[in-house]
Amino acid sequence: MVVEPEALDPFFHPKSIAIVGVSRTNLELGGTSFLNRLRQAGYCGALYPINPKMDTVSGIRAYPDLTSLPELPDLVMVCLAAGRVPSVLDECARIGVRHIHILTSGFRELGTEEGEALENRIASIAREKGLLVIGPNCMGPYCPSSHLTPWGAIPGLPGPIGIISQSGTITQRLAELMCSLGIGVEKAVSIGNAAVLSNPDYLAYMARDKKIKVIAMYVEGLRDGKSLFDLTRKVTQIKPVIIWKGGESDVGASTISSHTGKMAGQRHIWEAFFRQTGAVQVQSVEEWMDALVAFCLLPSAIGKEVFLIGGGGGSSVVNSDSFIRGGFNVPRLSDATMERLCQIIPAAGSIAGNPLDQFRTFQDTAHLTEILELGFRDPACSMIVVDRLIPRIAYHLPDLPDSTPELIAYLTRKQQEKPVIMAVESEGGDEDLAAEGAAIRGRFCKAGIPAFPSINRAVRALRHLSRYQEKPLNLERRNFK
Amino acid sequence: MVVEPEALDPFFHPKSIAIVGVSRTNLELGGTSFLNRLRQAGYCGALYPINPKMDTVSGIRAYPDLTSLPELPDLVMVCLAAGRVPSVLDECARIGVRHIHILTSGFRELGTEEGEALENRIASIAREKGLLVIGPNCMGPYCPSSHLTPWGAIPGLPGPIGIISQSGTITQRLAELMCSLGIGVEKAVSIGNAAVLSNPDYLAYMARDKKIKVIAMYVEGLRDGKSLFDLTRKVTQIKPVIIWKGGESDVGASTISSHTGKMAGQRHIWEAFFRQTGAVQVQSVEEWMDALVAFCLLPSAIGKEVFLIGGGGGSSVVNSDSFIRGGFNVPRLSDATMERLCQIIPAAGSIAGNPLDQFRTFQDTAHLTEILELGFRDPACSMIVVDRLIPRIAYHLPDLPDSTPELIAYLTRKQQEKPVIMAVESEGGDEDLAAEGAAIRGRFCKAGIPAFPSINRAVRALRHLSRYQEKPLNLERRNFK
Repeated sequence: MVVEPEALDPFFHPKSIAIVGVSRTNLELGGTSFLNRLRQAGYCGALYPINPKMDTVSGIRAYPDLTSLPELPDLVMVCLAAGRVPSVLDECARIGVRHIHILTSGFRELGTEEGEALENRIASIAREKGLLVIGPNCMGPYCPSSHLTPWGAIPGLPGPIGIISQSGTITQRLAELMCSLGIGVEKAVSIGNAAVLSNPDYLAYMARDKKIKVIAMYVEGLRDGKSLFDLTRKVTQIKPVIIWKGGESDVGASTISSHTGKMAGQRHIWEAFFRQTGAVQVQSVEEWMDALVAFCLLPSAIGKEVFLIGGGGGSSVVNSDSFIRGGFNVPRLSDATMERLCQIIPAAGSIAGNPLDQFRTFQDTAHLTEILELGFRDPACSMIVVDRLIPRIAYHLPDLPDSTPELIAYLTRKQQEKPVIMAVESEGGDEDLAAEGAAIRGRFCKAGIPAFPSINRAVRALRHLSRYQEKPLNLERRNFK
Repeated sequence: MVVEPEALDPFFHPKSIAIVGVSRTNLELGGTSFLNRLRQAGYCGALYPINPKMDTVSGIRAYPDLTSLPELPDLVMVCLAAGRVPSVLDECARIGVRHIHILTSGFRELGTEEGEALENRIASIAREKGLLVIGPNCMGPYCPSSHLTPWGAIPGLPGPIGIISQSGTITQRLAELMCSLGIGVEKAVSIGNAAVLSNPDYLAYMARDKKIKVIAMYVEGLRDGKSLFDLTRKVTQIKPVIIWKGGESDVGASTISSHTGKMAGQRHIWEAFFRQTGAVQVQSVEEWMDALVAFCLLPSAIGKEVFLIGGGGGSSVVNSDSFIRGGFNVPRLSDATMERLCQIIPAAGSIAGNPLDQFRTFQDTAHLTEILELGFRDPACSMIVVDRLIPRIAYHLPDLPDSTPELIAYLTRKQQEKPVIMAVESEGGDEDLAAEGAAIRGRFCKAGIPAFPSINRAVRALRHLSRYQEKPLNLERRNFK
């Protein structure tokens, strides 16, 4: 089933939501939790809890069934036990509701005949009655601009990312991460067993959504791989699609059948998929997040010539190694730049050049910006990477206030110049340092300056962007920023 | 020059230290900073600032020169400008001081004839007079058990690690990291240009040091590679040597000559070095830290059969992928375990098996420990990995107190059972979460339970340990824990 993309709109911008299956006692994952989270997120549409035994739920008037509602809800969320789901679908069809999200688990993923039969029954009701169903066995839709955030970051932050995922936990975590970095999510959908609507339906929808600049997809298995292949190939011409494919190992693949009741597909088929569609492949939530930071915050062409600024000779050595291992160049700077650098950087204890080693860059923003200016003007480099150490007592630096705001103000004025990328490391068991690192990276990203927790992670993310840009398949691709 | 290992003892356990080159004005990196840091760290030996123009420095009596001191200092730290260093060495030789650390930069790493000549002069004075010299151009010795911590974590924490490094920044950072995780450092030494004492001298010393269980080394270039090769091959028979080799790329290699004035050595030679010595190769400070956590906290044989416990079906899929990609197995559990798991884990929304998916493990420690018990008894697995999500609002979990202390208490009682490894992720721009993650990982590591910031990083660290254990070269190796 591939539906007209616009048909999915009410899932993400519903004017009213009925929640079937709310209880007084179970406040964990389920209808009541969804109801409470939606209110907490400031959802302004009508909310209709359905429970024949209760007059109100969480202070909201409850109704005995969908038929008794004062209006047709745009979206019905079904949180009842699996066996009771088909009758809800029948009721939806009878009263004219078309958009349904089924949270409930207990279908094909059980691996039992009953589970499979129940899922087939849902699919056939949907097919016969023309119902659009997200799920079953999933967290459903998420859209911060509609305050539709029953999970993930609450209240969430609208932004350029679309997420389609067969894992609820992974979708929630990615949504949280992108909001915490101030980049934000336009729409996300956890699609579970995808018994009715499946990956290609959501992909076609998000491809058309002008607010979505980059699509992130977590895939376990598919009913119709050819359809996703053809569509992905088209979509990557207009916007990047960054895919995490779960189940490449035998154990991972067999776990999929217990998770979403799907078949993982053979590994070599997926390798060909990535080679031939132009989709970007990632293998962890950190790699996904980092790639999204790069694709959302950097222009469509970054080049390969990196000017590396940091402090510490050893760091300069290994940071160069990392960029060159990642397929970038750390070129000799032009004579004019070198002449000036040799004037402003002392010979002993520093290195004037590329990589540039000067500890003073960590504490003296005027000094750093003078070096950045040289980089902006030097034709030898196309982007600048700053290894930004958080000053601490060990480094014999004076106790100065954090210069991040000053640096952000400067870089914001210079945003038409070459891309500047930050690496701000804060590893280990020191909680103050960890908090400071997260806050600084968040502050940079919120200002539109990509920041990563290590040089190696910056390299990996930039490499994804650079390879996406150079793929011959995508020569016709327009600027997606 | 390869010296008797014991001869290096006074560098790390000096009863008195003279610091030549202290000033009133420059409080940044230099003699005064070292002096102040040593006092701050509680160094209890005698401290002698040397400055002919001052009576006291930081409230401590100063002396005009080494000859005027009331006793022969065990260690002399030289922080004067490069051109004045040779005369200090002459003075040391004249009065009978043998142990000298030269902080000063401005020698061979300048790439000038003068710099090279000055370094050669230092080396020849040392050779003629039998002086032992750390440096020049380096941060020198660090030893928390002697309160000799002028850099890195202050006051530092004694522990099982020895560090030998040609980068001051990298040494300091690794020392800080291992202290922040409660594992600690017995001795570290930043060796700079290594004009006199070089890697093999320090390696031989740390190989004999019974308090050092694992040696971490950052190498840029060597004068005598054969000597390090032969020695490393021997040392890896008794304790692991984890090496980060900087300068594998051309740019990295040429940066080395500006950093420590060394030649990087060809890449294929270093590949053979790792293959033939049994040393473990890492490529970033995070990878180094993670490997050290695994080598320090895990027993000498961990096996390959992993029981994976977590919550979230998608996570179960991709975590299995990660372990299998890393060369581990995620085996089917025994029938007895499966029977019990099927009783205690609901069919819908969870997966009873390996990987095990049960969200309740995040909030209910009694439930988790019941599953851990089954893992301890099951002959199918040799270690247990827990993907430990930090409960947050998105996950629809009730707001419960952090159960880490309860879990640590349980695991401490069970430490004779199979190894249990934690993955506690806390990525992104949320500073509270970052702080919580760092604190939890630190708490686990401090209790002797290895904790990593992601499943992939756990896999990479465990893979280093597992491969070290299985190398035929090391069949005779004793338990190093």
